[in-house]
Amino acid sequence: MTIDIGIVGGTGYTGVELLRLLAQHPSVRVRAITSRKDAGTKVADMFPSLRRRYDGLAFVEPDAARLADCALVFFATPHGVAMAQARELVAAGTRIVDLAADFRLKDPALFERWYKMPHACPDLLAQSVYGLPEVNREAIRGARIVGNPGCYPTAVQLGFLPLLEAGVVDTRHLIADCKSGVSGAGRKAEVNLLFAEASDNFAAYGVRGHRHHPEIAQGLALAAGGPVGLVFTPHLTPAIRGIYATLYAPLVCPDTDLQALYEKRYAGEPFVDVMPPGSAPDTRSVRASNMLRIAVHRPAGTDLAMILVVEDNLVKGAAGQAIQNMNLMFGWPETAGLDALPVLP
Amino acid sequence: MTIDIGIVGGTGYTGVELLRLLAQHPSVRVRAITSRKDAGTKVADMFPSLRRRYDGLAFVEPDAARLADCALVFFATPHGVAMAQARELVAAGTRIVDLAADFRLKDPALFERWYKMPHACPDLLAQSVYGLPEVNREAIRGARIVGNPGCYPTAVQLGFLPLLEAGVVDTRHLIADCKSGVSGAGRKAEVNLLFAEASDNFAAYGVRGHRHHPEIAQGLALAAGGPVGLVFTPHLTPAIRGIYATLYAPLVCPDTDLQALYEKRYAGEPFVDVMPPGSAPDTRSVRASNMLRIAVHRPAGTDLAMILVVEDNLVKGAAGQAIQNMNLMFGWPETAGLDALPVLP
Amino acid sequence: MTIDIGIVGGTGYTGVELLRLLAQHPSVRVRAITSRKDAGTKVADMFPSLRRRYDGLAFVEPDAARLADCALVFFATPHGVAMAQARELVAAGTRIVDLAADFRLKDPALFERWYKMPHACPDLLAQSVYGLPEVNREAIRGARIVGNPGCYPTAVQLGFLPLLEAGVVDTRHLIADCKSGVSGAGRKAEVNLLFAEASDNFAAYGVRGHRHHPEIAQGLALAAGGPVGLVFTPHLTPAIRGIYATLYAPLVCPDTDLQALYEKRYAGEPFVDVMPPGSAPDTRSVRASNMLRIAVHRPAGTDLAMILVVEDNLVKGAAGQAIQNMNLMFGWPETAGLDALPVLP
Amino acid sequence: MTIDIGIVGGTGYTGVELLRLLAQHPSVRVRAITSRKDAGTKVADMFPSLRRRYDGLAFVEPDAARLADCALVFFATPHGVAMAQARELVAAGTRIVDLAADFRLKDPALFERWYKMPHACPDLLAQSVYGLPEVNREAIRGARIVGNPGCYPTAVQLGFLPLLEAGVVDTRHLIADCKSGVSGAGRKAEVNLLFAEASDNFAAYGVRGHRHHPEIAQGLALAAGGPVGLVFTPHLTPAIRGIYATLYAPLVCPDTDLQALYEKRYAGEPFVDVMPPGSAPDTRSVRASNMLRIAVHRPAGTDLAMILVVEDNLVKGAAGQAIQNMNLMFGWPETAGLDALPVLP
Repeated sequence: MTIDIGIVGGTGYTGVELLRLLAQHPSVRVRAITSRKDAGTKVADMFPSLRRRYDGLAFVEPDAARLADCALVFFATPHGVAMAQARELVAAGTRIVDLAADFRLKDPALFERWYKMPHACPDLLAQSVYGLPEVNREAIRGARIVGNPGCYPTAVQLGFLPLLEAGVVDTRHLIADCKSGVSGAGRKAEVNLLFAEASDNFAAYGVRGHRHHPEIAQGLALAAGGPVGLVFTPHLTPAIRGIYATLYAPLVCPDTDLQALYEKRYAGEPFVDVMPPGSAPDTRSVRASNMLRIAVHRPAGTDLAMILVVEDNLVKGAAGQAIQNMNLMFGWPETAGLDALPVLP
Repeated sequence: MTIDIGIVGGTGYTGVELLRLLAQHPSVRVRAITSRKDAGTKVADMFPSLRRRYDGLAFVEPDAARLADCALVFFATPHGVAMAQARELVAAGTRIVDLAADFRLKDPALFERWYKMPHACPDLLAQSVYGLPEVNREAIRGARIVGNPGCYPTAVQLGFLPLLEAGVVDTRHLIADCKSGVSGAGRKAEVNLLFAEASDNFAAYGVRGHRHHPEIAQGLALAAGGPVGLVFTPHLTPAIRGIYATLYAPLVCPDTDLQALYEKRYAGEPFVDVMPPGSAPDTRSVRASNMLRIAVHRPAGTDLAMILVVEDNLVKGAAGQAIQNMNLMFGWPETAGLDALPVLP
Repeated sequence: MTIDIGIVGGTGYTGVELLRLLAQHPSVRVRAITSRKDAGTKVADMFPSLRRRYDGLAFVEPDAARLADCALVFFATPHGVAMAQARELVAAGTRIVDLAADFRLKDPALFERWYKMPHACPDLLAQSVYGLPEVNREAIRGARIVGNPGCYPTAVQLGFLPLLEAGVVDTRHLIADCKSGVSGAGRKAEVNLLFAEASDNFAAYGVRGHRHHPEIAQGLALAAGGPVGLVFTPHLTPAIRGIYATLYAPLVCPDTDLQALYEKRYAGEPFVDVMPPGSAPDTRSVRASNMLRIAVHRPAGTDLAMILVVEDNLVKGAAGQAIQNMNLMFGWPETAGLDALPVLP
Repeated sequence: MTIDIGIVGGTGYTGVELLRLLAQHPSVRVRAITSRKDAGTKVADMFPSLRRRYDGLAFVEPDAARLADCALVFFATPHGVAMAQARELVAAGTRIVDLAADFRLKDPALFERWYKMPHACPDLLAQSVYGLPEVNREAIRGARIVGNPGCYPTAVQLGFLPLLEAGVVDTRHLIADCKSGVSGAGRKAEVNLLFAEASDNFAAYGVRGHRHHPEIAQGLALAAGGPVGLVFTPHLTPAIRGIYATLYAPLVCPDTDLQALYEKRYAGEPFVDVMPPGSAPDTRSVRASNMLRIAVHRPAGTDLAMILVVEDNLVKGAAGQAIQNMNLMFGWPETAGLDALPVLP
């Protein structure tokens, strides 16, 4: 059986990545993709990589898309769009995976503070599920609305969770020193994202505060059973894809076998790979795939845990995780459409 | 039905690319992969991108590989290796696709001049088939040995062929100005391929002669029905993957409808995409895929044809084309294992 | 003695490059730099690389700049700005170097056709000098207005000129296959220039016609003593800086000693380096410097000259050449401020 | 007055960088440059960027170099070379700046443990000066042997020093999360440094221990007046040049005005630029220059100091600092030869 899928806002990187990955999925058909600005343009004219597979698909006006006829709609839009359309779609029985932030923060006040807009549907927010399968797998299966995690939050939470759940670190002093490829900023014409600016360069950004901080802190607090102290420092690295999270946490139980802790926590997870002791993962080892890899370290002479995490920000950090959530929602194998190996070199 | 496959020399980029692509193939199992130097090492330890899919596969000594038990062996080796082992394998009924140059040049003397070694089996060379499916599809089906084309030769031949077959250009003055990503040089520790040397840089190389020149000239001469005059200028561009061929040929029949000529020539080809008039293809539109794209131009004020060709040097220019050839040899759908969309961005 | 310099439009790459290079110049002081949009901003706040040297310099409104008090004004602006202000400045005795195209094409009709605006001062255009010192050195010394050549035109003209002046090639069939780093497109927020678009990619562009074509053709025609046939194909390569021109011309006098021809033509030129026979220059060998390097080739088995040219598009292709022109205009050593070695790696 | 300089081992990146920078220096002449492997090769044939300035300079055998006739010799060699030649040169009155590690660690046992060789001249080591001008300026002036700091140690020490000297942080829990461009690994033919491996990638390395750890710890301990606890995590980022150090330290005096502390500490320093509050420096803002920039932060909701430091690993992290040390040793202006602005873009 094949179900119909809709994509709202398909002109960005998460949109084209959804199309790339869904083309490998055995059970879905992309029925409609919307773009107000580019209505009428064929997707394969904007993204020639899609030629031969999506030759019949063109962007349509949101109103013309009849999204309510779809079994599921992905929102690959700026923040604020999904929550405006959610009530109508849910009423029609359409399920939603929002790749933006509308359904990530459980506290509407927190959402408003960081995203500078009131939340349009706090009641739906309360019912929605945060789409991190490694934490919320069962809830996702039954969810009508899934808030797909941000790219940094996926890596940082999966990196810290085993430590917090086991209660072996001082949760007041967590540091997440993170590095992201440039596609994480989206397909936006901004000077600082130009090749001639971002290439052969490296810099921290968002040093006065980044929207992924409250999202990460929310997830860590749930795992820790109380608020955590977190420094989150994002940096821009001259790569197209990839997130690298270097995490530091002071151990309160220095005798813990961290390697065993992580291997046990993620045993059976199809998309979390705990690497052997001593490993230093690299981002290309997950490029274009939904796999996330973790290496666990204890720097010599310290009482710190150092956790290294890599993911592809557009796959496990966005479109791939969205499809993983869809697979759970429809009872398909969790890996459906997501089993391609990383592209190396 | 699943057949057993062997790979000789799997520690380079074409080897790991074969493993990546074969993992998506419905009808094959990699039975053995050889490396004298790295025997005993797990492939997933050398290439962590293969973890979770090839955890049981390790490099073995060539002698231990029992390659003759395989239905097909890919040689992803330096030049000279395949021809040394071909006779024994063919005698055992094993079919061969050589990704090196041993079975590309039909004239053993030409091989010896460019590769500085005598050909080990001229009789087998005579029986072997040059593995360019768009030219030799039927012969490939029945071949015991396929010489898989070089990366530049694939792009340049497919770019020029329609012009030569139609007899509409002056074949004495063909120019192929080509640009390649750095992976085309292989996974070799050479100073000029270092990131700090090749990045933020651009240069021609091989200006005194390149081994792909005779291979290209051989194919063009067959299409033209006689020798051609060819300038082939390879350049190194700071990208990992991708070949860009900018081809110039003087038209002798200026009224020719070039666009129609190309569309007709490649109609039905699963991996050649003739783009609409006015297009400028980019290498990322084929990244990690077996598709090759062509755009046809007539520069204003000239009697020249200008043909733009892009391919991924490791896929259509190497491992993907090898699998396409295997599919033909075993009567499988030509696109089996090769239907993933390009990775963009 | 120190003279006062003005820069109009200093927020782009040629503007910041002028500031970088002028800081090393012994005889000038930047008195004013204008930007309507960023008036009030310190240049070192926009470009932190300028901190500690230009801490007192801020962008001012054009009207406030009192440019007529400067001995020379550089226009690092979009096309059309310099010609609108030229008459007033020239009347005040201020000399002008325009880094845009207003004073490059001698034929106002040609300018209008390619730049879609009428020329504001054809009389000044007639008096202006095309600022290619290797061709117009004496005229530049006395010029009031210099039209600084484009980046591609500098490389292509200096590459072809010796052949044309000597009359040894068929001028109807010239091919310039050119590759440029991304900074050549300017500091403009455009999607196709984003790191995530331009990195790990290669493509031709401007395939329907590029504004540098008439500029190149104008210079070549002057050297050849009549119109030339020229194909000019620009490509974008994932490097910040650098132009690589691969030039092809059919020899009509195949016995010509091309190496000697070039060495003689450019003997004594401070910024043209004719490399030894067999060389393949790379763009990094001129990075951040005003040097242009040329290698001369005769591909085997052909009657073609193949000329390889490298320059830094922002230096010899823009700001450096502008300073070289200024040095000539003021009787200073031609290399003043331009003697730093290229940055490698 | 011009003095004669010798360079031992000039075929790596620090060697060519010394030549680039020394070409701008008013008071030195490179008399000899040695390379056993490349004796007889002109430096400009190996590095065409040096053409026109060093056309007469060729690598010579160490014995033929008559280094003892030079006033100063730079060692741009692997570890172990300088200490083997130091005694003879010092005896001859020649002064030494070693860009390798032979004279960095004051404890010979520590040197032996990390560099796997005994120290050849502990007595000279005891007299040598660690060449960090911002700490040891006066001692450097009189030094016969200067151990030039490593690239990471320069950035990390200058970043932490004001905090340690002021005693405002808990020195048991210092974290240095560092990122380096690929040139930091040197001009060595290693697979992991290839463009096709290091490009579009990001990874930690040296996770089991890095030789710069004891060097950093030594300097921090001196400033702190006792041993410090330090985690040092180096990462490789796909840039040619640049080091980015993100430093974390727990404040014990949360009321400290960190910005004022840093501005005061580095007031008057020609090559340390304390940026305004809220800044996020980028590596390109120091590319090819000897400037190091620092930004001081207090992440919200924490009692941490977060210090961001950028430098060019080949300049302030190697060759530039070596020249700065030479300037001190000979009583020249500290900025002689080092006043070029960073190259941006």
